[in-house]
Amino acid sequence: MTTSLTQVMPTWLARIEDRLAHWLPPQKRYNATFHEAMRYSTLDGGKRIRPLLIYATGTATGQNLDELDGPACAVEMIHVYSLIHDDLPCMDDDDLRRGKPTCHKAFGEATAVLAGDALQALAFKILATDPAMTSDPAIRLNMIATIATAAGYQGMAGGQAIDLNSVGKKLSLIELEEMHIYKTGELIRAAVNMAASNRADLPPEQAQGLNHYAECIGLAFQIRDDILDIEGDTETLGKQSGADQALGKPTFPDIIGLKESKIRLRELHQQALTALESFDDKADTLRDIANYIVDRVR
Amino acid sequence: MTTSLTQVMPTWLARIEDRLAHWLPPQKRYNATFHEAMRYSTLDGGKRIRPLLIYATGTATGQNLDELDGPACAVEMIHVYSLIHDDLPCMDDDDLRRGKPTCHKAFGEATAVLAGDALQALAFKILATDPAMTSDPAIRLNMIATIATAAGYQGMAGGQAIDLNSVGKKLSLIELEEMHIYKTGELIRAAVNMAASNRADLPPEQAQGLNHYAECIGLAFQIRDDILDIEGDTETLGKQSGADQALGKPTFPDIIGLKESKIRLRELHQQALTALESFDDKADTLRDIANYIVDRVR
Repeated sequence: MTTSLTQVMPTWLARIEDRLAHWLPPQKRYNATFHEAMRYSTLDGGKRIRPLLIYATGTATGQNLDELDGPACAVEMIHVYSLIHDDLPCMDDDDLRRGKPTCHKAFGEATAVLAGDALQALAFKILATDPAMTSDPAIRLNMIATIATAAGYQGMAGGQAIDLNSVGKKLSLIELEEMHIYKTGELIRAAVNMAASNRADLPPEQAQGLNHYAECIGLAFQIRDDILDIEGDTETLGKQSGADQALGKPTFPDIIGLKESKIRLRELHQQALTALESFDDKADTLRDIANYIVDRVR
Repeated sequence: MTTSLTQVMPTWLARIEDRLAHWLPPQKRYNATFHEAMRYSTLDGGKRIRPLLIYATGTATGQNLDELDGPACAVEMIHVYSLIHDDLPCMDDDDLRRGKPTCHKAFGEATAVLAGDALQALAFKILATDPAMTSDPAIRLNMIATIATAAGYQGMAGGQAIDLNSVGKKLSLIELEEMHIYKTGELIRAAVNMAASNRADLPPEQAQGLNHYAECIGLAFQIRDDILDIEGDTETLGKQSGADQALGKPTFPDIIGLKESKIRLRELHQQALTALESFDDKADTLRDIANYIVDRVR
């Protein structure tokens, strides 16, 4: 059984695309523009880091991936809705996302707000109803609680609010890390923990290892993002480079410098790999994802 | 046991206020503005129709209301988040809601978008975790599916999108009713059905009666809203009267006339009461809510 990211990625990306398309509203005439806005922002784009993490965690823990399609779709829809809302003129005011016009540029602001709202609702509907998921309703409820917490005021939405209020301010390193743990880290952690929780008999030390792995790569992902905002180019990124700097957003390079940011990134990378020590080579995809996150160019 | 709305309303309103305050984020220093925006829009206002419907359905079916506090909070938070987003400048652009400045007027647009997003997440968190709710996880999942469907593209968000696209258009009566069933009817129906589903042994004909009651009062509520937009005054309403007309929104009086709208309202009222015929006087609160909806002045 192959578990290298390069080998499984095409299959997993096709798989999540297929499942997302299945759950999204149909392209029929009734309310067609609205449905199209939801499909436009969700399909054909994105790195799908969170679904890949779910499948990789499932693989590392020897699970049937069919049971994890639902959680993978749900976490990606939460992520996509947050991008739609974050791009709005009243938020980050971005015109470009994943190399194409942002949702509000393509469909108008009101439709973008509602498309995001409906994607959030759909994420929870999937977790509550997907027939391929676990037959244990308590596990589903646990997943719903995990993602609801990670998406809400103690997670993604809360972190975005802290982010908004920190524009032009000088944060400490701890404050900056806290902001990112809320804003992106909690949802990444939720992805890994949801997949882990699907195997009820997982040894606690393995569950803890996965949780710590997720914490490390979540923060590493953001540090890499900040570095790319300086060193990346717009075409490769699919979004405007230097955008965070232009908005006066605090970044890791701002606070601890570019060199120290790269050192912190390597440390987190190492910690993520160490957290997986008790796993065999079925966890290689998770290891590859950690490598990918610190090396990625977009 | 008293079941008239007038007698139970003060208790039930205090009860829902207390439970909402319990679940909302604390007014602490960390992320205080964001938390305050969520609390500001949720507490101290609103008719609480949906929570009242939940408690009234629980009373009609002889349930312990403690198990229904979670669903009552969840449905109200979904409703409140939709009001916050609907009031945004890119949507209905309202300055006044429940007699005070709208969320974006008080806290800014970005915070308003995020406060709405976080309230939606919190609604699902409550349904997944409230310890006072049913010990049967399958019933919880069913409630989550019900409210997620009612809030999403096949419900509230979808209806709001249809509404946006119908400004300045001449709809047929059927199209207008369909829009309102999506926009407000589905969430009202969800409230009643969630409460009914909490009693697993409820006879199917009673469950169907409650569902039909909810369908009728949901549409009646909207027709009364449209009539109030013409006949009500801004001070009593707590929002601008004539606002829908000014926005060019299609209304029942536009399409079938004011007199016919009032006739349709009475018909739906009568149908709602007929749907409760198999219930004894424990359903009087539900009957009173139907009366209140057609007679209300705000």
